[in-house]
Order: sequence, then C-alpha cells, then structure tokens
Amino acid sequence: MNVQLLLTPHTLDYVELEGKTVVVIDVLRSSTTICASLLAGARGVIPVAEPGEAGELRAKLGPDASVLAGERGGVKIENFQFGNSPTEFTPESVSGKSVILCTTNGTRVFGMASHAALVFSGALVNASVVAEAVATADVDTVIVCSGREGGFSIEDTLCGGLLIDRLTHKHGRRLVLNDAAALARLLYQERKDALKDAIAQGEHGRYLAGLGLAGDVELCSRVDSMSVIPVLKDGRLVRLDGR
Amino acid sequence: MNVQLLLTPHTLDYVELEGKTVVVIDVLRSSTTICASLLAGARGVIPVAEPGEAGELRAKLGPDASVLAGERGGVKIENFQFGNSPTEFTPESVSGKSVILCTTNGTRVFGMASHAALVFSGALVNASVVAEAVATADVDTVIVCSGREGGFSIEDTLCGGLLIDRLTHKHGRRLVLNDAAALARLLYQERKDALKDAIAQGEHGRYLAGLGLAGDVELCSRVDSMSVIPVLKDGRLVRLDGR
Repeated sequence: MNVQLLLTPHTLDYVELEGKTVVVIDVLRSSTTICASLLAGARGVIPVAEPGEAGELRAKLGPDASVLAGERGGVKIENFQFGNSPTEFTPESVSGKSVILCTTNGTRVFGMASHAALVFSGALVNASVVAEAVATADVDTVIVCSGREGGFSIEDTLCGGLLIDRLTHKHGRRLVLNDAAALARLLYQERKDALKDAIAQGEHGRYLAGLGLAGDVELCSRVDSMSVIPVLKDGRLVRLDGR
Repeated sequence: MNVQLLLTPHTLDYVELEGKTVVVIDVLRSSTTICASLLAGARGVIPVAEPGEAGELRAKLGPDASVLAGERGGVKIENFQFGNSPTEFTPESVSGKSVILCTTNGTRVFGMASHAALVFSGALVNASVVAEAVATADVDTVIVCSGREGGFSIEDTLCGGLLIDRLTHKHGRRLVLNDAAALARLLYQERKDALKDAIAQGEHGRYLAGLGLAGDVELCSRVDSMSVIPVLKDGRLVRLDGR
C-alpha cells in the first residue's frame, strides 16, 4: 500500500485521488469536534469552507434541523451558535441535528478531497479506529494534514505518524511511504511518550492556550478516547457503518 | 535569536522579513550550482523565475558577459547553454561572466525574499560557512526550504536542520524555533550519519537518478565541500566580502 502524506493541503490539487482512501487531519480542533458531534448523536457534520456558505446551507436545511458552528483564527464566528470547541457538542445541543462546520484550516480540505473513493476524518482521539478502516479498505492512501494557516503543524503531522505506525504494527500493512510520510512516522516515534507536551508546546497549542483554550488542546491530545469513524457521504460526515 | 523554518515557500509572503536574515535552500540542485558558479569565478548568479525573463536579461547584459542556465523538471531548458548541474560551471565556462539561473523550485524564492536585510543561498556544500554568516549577523532568521514542486523535500529540510545544529553547537546561539525548525533539527540529528543515503533514497534524489543524475545528487550531498557564502546584492548572488 502506498501511503502519501501531505504536510499541508497546498499540493492536494495535484494528487491523483481516484480510487484511493483519503484521511483529512485537523487535530486542533475540527477533526476532534467532528468526532464529538457524531458521538453526541448529530445527524452528520457538513464541512464548509466559508461562513456565507454555512449560512445559506442552514437556511436551506431549516433552523430546527441544523446548527452553525465554526471559527476564524480560533474565535467563534459572529452569529454562529457554536465555536469549534469539542466540549460544546453534547446530546443536548446537537442530537438529531446537522452540524454545519466552518473552520480556518480543516473543513475546506474535504471539498478538495471529495472525489476520492473514501474520505475519513482522522484525529488523535480516533486514530486507531481510523487506521483499522484504512487497513480494511486496503488501497493507496493519502493522509492530508490541514496544517495551520497554510503552514505545517506539529499536531497534524504527529497524528499522521501515529496512523502510519498503527497501519504497520497493528495491521501488518507493508507501506511504501513518501518523504513526508517517513518524516511524520519519525516524528511520532520520537515524541510518542510525550505527545501531549509536544502538542501543548507547539505553535498552535500555545496560540489556543493564549485564547484560554488549553483545556481543548489537552482534550484533543487524548489518543483513542473517542471510538468513532467519520466518513464523507454526499458532502456530509457520518459514522461509518454506524460505528 | 528566533529561527523560523518554512518547509515550503508557500507561506513566505505572510512572513515579516524586514531586518531579518533569510537563507534560501535548494540542495538539489540550484543552491549547489550557485556555489559552484561563484567558486568557478562567475561575476555573480542572477536568479530568475521564468525562462522568458532570463532571455530578456541576457539580451540586456550582452551574450559575451552572461550565460543562460536552468531547468524545468530537472531537464535543461531548450536553447539555454547550461542546465542545472553543478559540474557544468567551471572556470572555462563561466569565469568573469554573469550566470542567469532559472530553475523549477529554488530561484523564484530569491525574488520573494529580496526585502530582507540579508539573503544567503544555503546548501549542504556550504552549510557551515553560511551558519557562521548567520551567527555573525545575529538577527532573527528565516530559513526557506524551496521544496519540490510546491511540496516538502527531505534534502532541503535536512540542510535546514544542519544549519540549526551548527548555529546551536558551533556558534552557541540560543535559538527559539518554530515547529518546522524543531522538526528539521530532529530529522537532521536522526539522519546525520547517513545523510547521503537519506537524500539518494528521497523522492527528488530518486527522480534525478532516474534522469541519469545520481552523480549530481552525490555531489550535492557533500557537507562543507565548497567554502563560499553567496549573498544577494541588487538582485545578484555574489560572494560575501569576497569569501
């Protein structure tokens, strides 16, 4: 199985995705928020790139059937009901509803990847179950780190490295890695015993802590704490086979 | 000293460069070619982004005073005298002349960085002397990896890690690193005893070997083999203080 990791989504448009599995990673925080929403019983999470698009979609779906969630620069978008903190998404707030999610880095990537055979949302909180789904699909895989404002982010790269590690060790897949995938695996192996610290001390972790969101950073760093596999289906992230 | 490394030049436009030192790295092969040209006695290397621009410049400088060099996808540009192999640039071919250099990844970055206080061209072949010049300038530094066709490249990141290692250990600078700089240092420390192999086995190294250019890859991987410090002055790379 070829595994190609992209440290940022910039070059995604040049990558052939037909027939492949794609994993979109945005650890801080949209990938984690997506898991939390689905576990809280949301009907699905609809990733959108721009706030205007989110508002139009809500008007179409109806205000009772949907909620607007998202951030710009880590801060909740004005007039949206929710920001992008995984703790906001509870059965009380989103059960049975569609969550329309618009974030700075992560959500726009789903639109770019939608023509792949399978598109998963991967985070540290669901890394092992996503690795299992990737191993089951057993086709060439592209791991896309959303990064931060166009640049590399350590938490997404660590998560990519963790996925690759699981694919190799737990699922016994022989992988052919591109340079960035090999780098991500090295970074994970080097930092795996201090993942939480590496993320908290990274640029994005420090930035969110400065906004009073250190609790979110910690929550998003809990490996395998949410057993859910979000998969893209007709533009909406839902649980794979109800898992 | 803050050291910010960019794994690709994508985000360079968003980075404040005023008053800072910039090091542009394109190990395979333009950074190495620039060193070879200056050591061969070229009057300077003028990095340009597009072949058309190169042709116009040569008409202006005069055909006796300048040569055209460059590649697209590793292959010499038609009607150019030279490609981008460091071995082509000898005293016989370029002494006393301006080398107008146009390459796929590296040369366009100089134009984006020209408003920094100092802009160096860094390669593995001149890493230690460039680190010395960066330490002497002693201001915040941005290391820009040119990467390959917009994506990450292992050889440029290794070279950035080597520069950071030298700044810390040889020059005793206390560095504040961004995530990518920390990653580059880790990669270098992990691979330093097998640098040549890591580069030859990387994507770009394999690609060039496929074009029959494995010799260039090996030459470009020789750490500190060319003692020259190319610095940008009025759009032209020349030897810093004649060194």
